[in-house]
Amino acid sequence: MGDLNVTPWEVSGELNDEAYKRLVDKFGVDLISDKLLERINKIAKGKLHPFLKKKIFFAHRELNLVLDDYENGKPFYLYTGRGPSGKMHTGHLLPFMFTLWLQKIFNVHLLIQITDDEKFLVKDISKDEVARFTNENIIDILSLGFDPEKTHIISDYQQAKTLYYYATDVAKHITSSTIKAVFGVTDSDNIGKLFFPSMQIVPSFLLSAITGKKMRCLIPYAIDQDPYFRVARDVLPKIGYYKPSSIISKFLPSLQGNSAKMSSSKEESAIFLDDSREVVKKKLLKYAFSGGRDTLEEQRKYGANPDIDFSFTEYSFLEEDQNKVEKVYQDYKTGKILSGEMKLMAADKISSFLEELKERREKVKENISAYMFDENKLKF
Amino acid sequence: MGDLNVTPWEVSGELNDEAYKRLVDKFGVDLISDKLLERINKIAKGKLHPFLKKKIFFAHRELNLVLDDYENGKPFYLYTGRGPSGKMHTGHLLPFMFTLWLQKIFNVHLLIQITDDEKFLVKDISKDEVARFTNENIIDILSLGFDPEKTHIISDYQQAKTLYYYATDVAKHITSSTIKAVFGVTDSDNIGKLFFPSMQIVPSFLLSAITGKKMRCLIPYAIDQDPYFRVARDVLPKIGYYKPSSIISKFLPSLQGNSAKMSSSKEESAIFLDDSREVVKKKLLKYAFSGGRDTLEEQRKYGANPDIDFSFTEYSFLEEDQNKVEKVYQDYKTGKILSGEMKLMAADKISSFLEELKERREKVKENISAYMFDENKLKF
Repeated sequence: MGDLNVTPWEVSGELNDEAYKRLVDKFGVDLISDKLLERINKIAKGKLHPFLKKKIFFAHRELNLVLDDYENGKPFYLYTGRGPSGKMHTGHLLPFMFTLWLQKIFNVHLLIQITDDEKFLVKDISKDEVARFTNENIIDILSLGFDPEKTHIISDYQQAKTLYYYATDVAKHITSSTIKAVFGVTDSDNIGKLFFPSMQIVPSFLLSAITGKKMRCLIPYAIDQDPYFRVARDVLPKIGYYKPSSIISKFLPSLQGNSAKMSSSKEESAIFLDDSREVVKKKLLKYAFSGGRDTLEEQRKYGANPDIDFSFTEYSFLEEDQNKVEKVYQDYKTGKILSGEMKLMAADKISSFLEELKERREKVKENISAYMFDENKLKF
Repeated sequence: MGDLNVTPWEVSGELNDEAYKRLVDKFGVDLISDKLLERINKIAKGKLHPFLKKKIFFAHRELNLVLDDYENGKPFYLYTGRGPSGKMHTGHLLPFMFTLWLQKIFNVHLLIQITDDEKFLVKDISKDEVARFTNENIIDILSLGFDPEKTHIISDYQQAKTLYYYATDVAKHITSSTIKAVFGVTDSDNIGKLFFPSMQIVPSFLLSAITGKKMRCLIPYAIDQDPYFRVARDVLPKIGYYKPSSIISKFLPSLQGNSAKMSSSKEESAIFLDDSREVVKKKLLKYAFSGGRDTLEEQRKYGANPDIDFSFTEYSFLEEDQNKVEKVYQDYKTGKILSGEMKLMAADKISSFLEELKERREKVKENISAYMFDENKLKF
C-alpha cells in the first residue's frame, strides 16, 4: 500500500477499495452519493448506466452544480480526452461509451481532446507515429456513434492556434512549483511536459471562452487524470470561468486481472479493436482473469465471483439487456455457468461488438472532418 | 561591476567596455575581427554599415559559416524579433534598420517574430493591450521599407499552430534545469515563461523545417537575447538542423545617456515614433545626454565628445551621407559645433525621418497581409 502512486504518467500499487478510499481523501474529491445517483437516474428515465450502478464511476467534483444547471435549463458541456500513443483496446473505449451515454441523456456538446503533443513530449515516440495513432484513435472513438453536430474532436497540434492562445491564460497563473508538487515532475523533465497541463486545461473553459457565455463543463475521467483538473479548479475562477466539474472513474479491470490500468504495451495484455474473432477467443481462454474456481467440482458447488471476472465484466458492459446480464450474473455466481462458458460468451459478445465497430468505422472515415473542432463553425 | 545582470528580462549594471568584455567571455561569443569585417565590407561593396564600423554590432557566433555559404551560393536566411509590450521608440528601430541593411546586401528571406505570447506571460499586461502593440509595432517596423516578397512577420499567437508544433521538438530536448540555469528563472515563475524559449527558438530553423532544405539562419540581436540562442545551438543539431549563427549588438545609447537599454516606460526617456517635431526638439534640448562641455568657452576650446553624445549618435545613424557625418563629427569634436546646435541638427534629422516613416506607414497599413508569414505561400 505504501507504493501506491497515481499520476497521469504512472500508476503503480494495488488498486483495491482501500486504495481508492485513500485517493479520494488525498485528491479531495467526493464519493457519488445515493441521492446524486437518484438525480441522474431520474434524468436517465430510470436507465442508469451500469458504470454508475457498479460504482466504476464512483466519485465527482460539483456534479450537483451541473445537474442544477441542467434542471434549470442552463447550457453546459462535456469534455474528455485520449492520449494517442498506441492502438486502442476495449478498455480504452469503455469510458467513451460512458461519455456517449452522458451526451445522450443530457443532449449536450462534447469536446474530445487528443493530446498528441503530450504523447510526443513524454514518450520515446516520433511525431509520425503519434500522427498515425491520432488518426486511427479518432476513427475508433467516433465509430461508437457520437453525434457529429455536437461532438468536436480537438487534436492539440491541429488546434494549437486556439489552444496555445488560451493556454497562456492558464499558464500565467501556474508556477513551476505547483506543477512539481501536483504532478511529481522534476527539474530533469522537459519544459514541454511542464507546460502541457495548460493545454489540457483549456477545453474545460474553451466553449465559454469562444461563445462568450459562461458555462459549466463536466469532465468524465479516470482518477489518474485528476491532477489536471485540480489545478484547473484553482486557475479558472482567476480568469473568469467556472471551476470544472468532474465525474471520476476507477481503473477498469484488465484482461490479466491486476487492478491497474489495462496496458497497451503488450499484445496479450488487452483485446485490441482490430483483433479477429479467433484472437479474441484465444486471448480470453488463455489470459482472461477469472473469478471461477480451480476445479469443475468446486465451481459447480460454490459458483464463481463475477465481480472480479474479466469476461463477465466485459460481457456486462456490452450486453444492453440488463435483465439478461443479471441472469448471467446469478447463474455464474451459483455455478450454473462455468468459467470456460463465461469466457466464450464474453468472446462472442466482444467480437460482435468489434465487428459492428468495424462497419461503422468505414462510414466515419469518410465523414471525419464533420467532427473536427472548428471555432468558426461552432453553433451554440 | 558586481551588479552586472543581463537576461532577456532584466539588464542592470553599468554597460561599459569592460562589462561587454565580461559578457563576451561569459556567453562564449566571438568578437567580430577586422578580417571578418573586411569580408562583409566586400559583400557590401565598400559600404559598411555604421553599426559595424562603430562596433555597435561587435560580436558573433559562426558568422563566418554564413558568409561561406553566401559566397558558395548556398541559401541562408535572417531572423530577428520584437516583444510588443509598448510603443516603439527610435532605439527600437535601429536594429531593424541594420537588419534591413543585411537583407539588402545579402538579398535573403527574413523572419521577424513578434513575441506577443511572451509579453503577455511575463508582464502585467492584458492580451488586448499586447494585440494593440503587436499591430502598431508591426506597422512601425515595416514602414522602414522591408521587401514584402522576402519578409515574413510571425506573431506567435497568430502562427501558434506552426510554432507550437515545432516548439515541442525543441522543448523535448530542454530540461527545466537548463532554463533555470541559463535564464535565471525560478520555480516561482510561471510555466509559460519556462516553456517560451521553445517558441523563440523555432524561427531559427523554421524555414529549414518547412522547405525541407537544411539552411543556416543568421540572427541579429542585442546581447541580452543571447541565452535563447545559446540554448538553440545545443538543441538544433539534435533535431537535424544547423546551429544558428548570430551577429550581436551592444545596447544603443539612450536619450538620458545611461548605458543600459533605452526605456519605453517613461515618456521622457525616449523619442517615440509618434512624437511631433516640437516634442522631439524639446526632448533633445531638455533630456538628451550630451558629450559637450559645461560652458560655451570650454566647448569652443576643448570640443565635445561625440562618441557618448546621444544627439550626434542618432544623427550619425540617420544621415546617409557618411562624409557629412564625418565632417560633423570633426566639427563637434573640435568645438566648431556647440551642444545646442548638435541637438537641433539631430532633432531635425530625427523629425524628418519620423515624418518619412509616417508617410510610409499609411501605405504599409493597407498592405500588411502581404508581409504576414504564411507557410503555404512561402516560395523558396
